Amino acid sequence: MPALGHHSLFDLHECDPAKLADRAVVREALLGAIRAGGGTVVTDAFHQFSPHGVSGVVVITESHLTVHTWPERAFAAADLFTCGPTLDHDAVGRMVAAALGAQRTECRTVERG
Amino acid sequence: MPALGHHSLFDLHECDPAKLADRAVVREALLGAIRAGGGTVVTDAFHQFSPHGVSGVVVITESHLTVHTWPERAFAAADLFTCGPTLDHDAVGRMVAAALGAQRTECRTVERG
Repeated sequence: MPALGHHSLFDLHECDPAKLADRAVVREALLGAIRAGGGTVVTDAFHQFSPHGVSGVVVITESHLTVHTWPERAFAAADLFTCGPTLDHDAVGRMVAAALGAQRTECRTVERG
Repeated sequence: MPALGHHSLFDLHECDPAKLADRAVVREALLGAIRAGGGTVVTDAFHQFSPHGVSGVVVITESHLTVHTWPERAFAAADLFTCGPTLDHDAVGRMVAAALGAQRTECRTVERG
């Protein structure tokens, strides 16, 4: 039986710390990638931590996209989970990476269900 | 250097389909597991799909807990991502599994960053 969910884990290295520290930039990185990929946003929630770092989750009709940022380490972890073929995981990962200024991306993909 | 994030992927099999189809039950499964584990909820967003299935994300100060359910397959996929030692991943996974009536859980853990 085919997997129900496709889950990509993007580790984004050597990002721009100023972008990672800015809730609005991080939010737009995720929402822009979903829009560009043809996904549909249901709702989103982003939180700026003190002294730094942003966590954000976007519920999409295709499932979810999340991110956590560590400006002090120039690192962000993003996850894309989808059920169905609508979204191109590689393209979404590249767009998020570009928006956060990542110089290097590691991607692991896990089939779920 | 130690990993920045600890990410557990729980595949919950043979769940109770009625629980998986009920947004309120699914939301309480996640929030209850976070509370019981000593985590702190920042915000949450849950969505009931038509004809069935629930997607939900909880932003916690420790990072996030998400779930997607397939009542028609008695399956749910839950992810717990944390930075820091506060939450016991196994305990949170067991609580979510119990709340959704899962008979079998597969867990994969991925170190991030």
